[in-house]
Amino acid sequence: MFKATIYVNYKPSVLDPKAEVIKKTLGRLGQTNVASVLVGKYFELTLSADSKEAAEQQVDRICDEMLANVNMESYRYDVAAVTA
Amino acid sequence: MFKATIYVNYKPSVLDPKAEVIKKTLGRLGQTNVASVLVGKYFELTLSADSKEAAEQQVDRICDEMLANVNMESYRYDVAAVTA
Repeated sequence: MFKATIYVNYKPSVLDPKAEVIKKTLGRLGQTNVASVLVGKYFELTLSADSKEAAEQQVDRICDEMLANVNMESYRYDVAAVTA
Repeated sequence: MFKATIYVNYKPSVLDPKAEVIKKTLGRLGQTNVASVLVGKYFELTLSADSKEAAEQQVDRICDEMLANVNMESYRYDVAAVTA
């Protein structure tokens, strides 16, 4: 079994209003030392595969076709073997 | 400067329909080897603080008061020093 941890977030060129609101609200609450905020999604998938390479290929496909909007978002992932 | 990476996800006892839908849809697409799906949010905060401990305390407070719904969600975070 393999465990894939996938991180999806907006590309740097895309404005993320949610992150802006969090930063502004923190500032209003007096936490003005917070310099930047990034908001993303993460997914943990457990899957069976013949090899780490096969698992990575499948995860890549799942990201492209389903989990990420590749127009606006970028993704990265780690795949590690786990005991079932 | 410190960089905090925060992970927020539903507690195991809370049903996550989004994760269920992803798992079912993957199954319908033939990816039946995906055994489990977890969906969470992550945040990256850059903040200035006197020490790692002070940064961790602040991040803890921000999670409790803002980023996580502690009734339904749990969170964990890593804080690491970064060069400004």
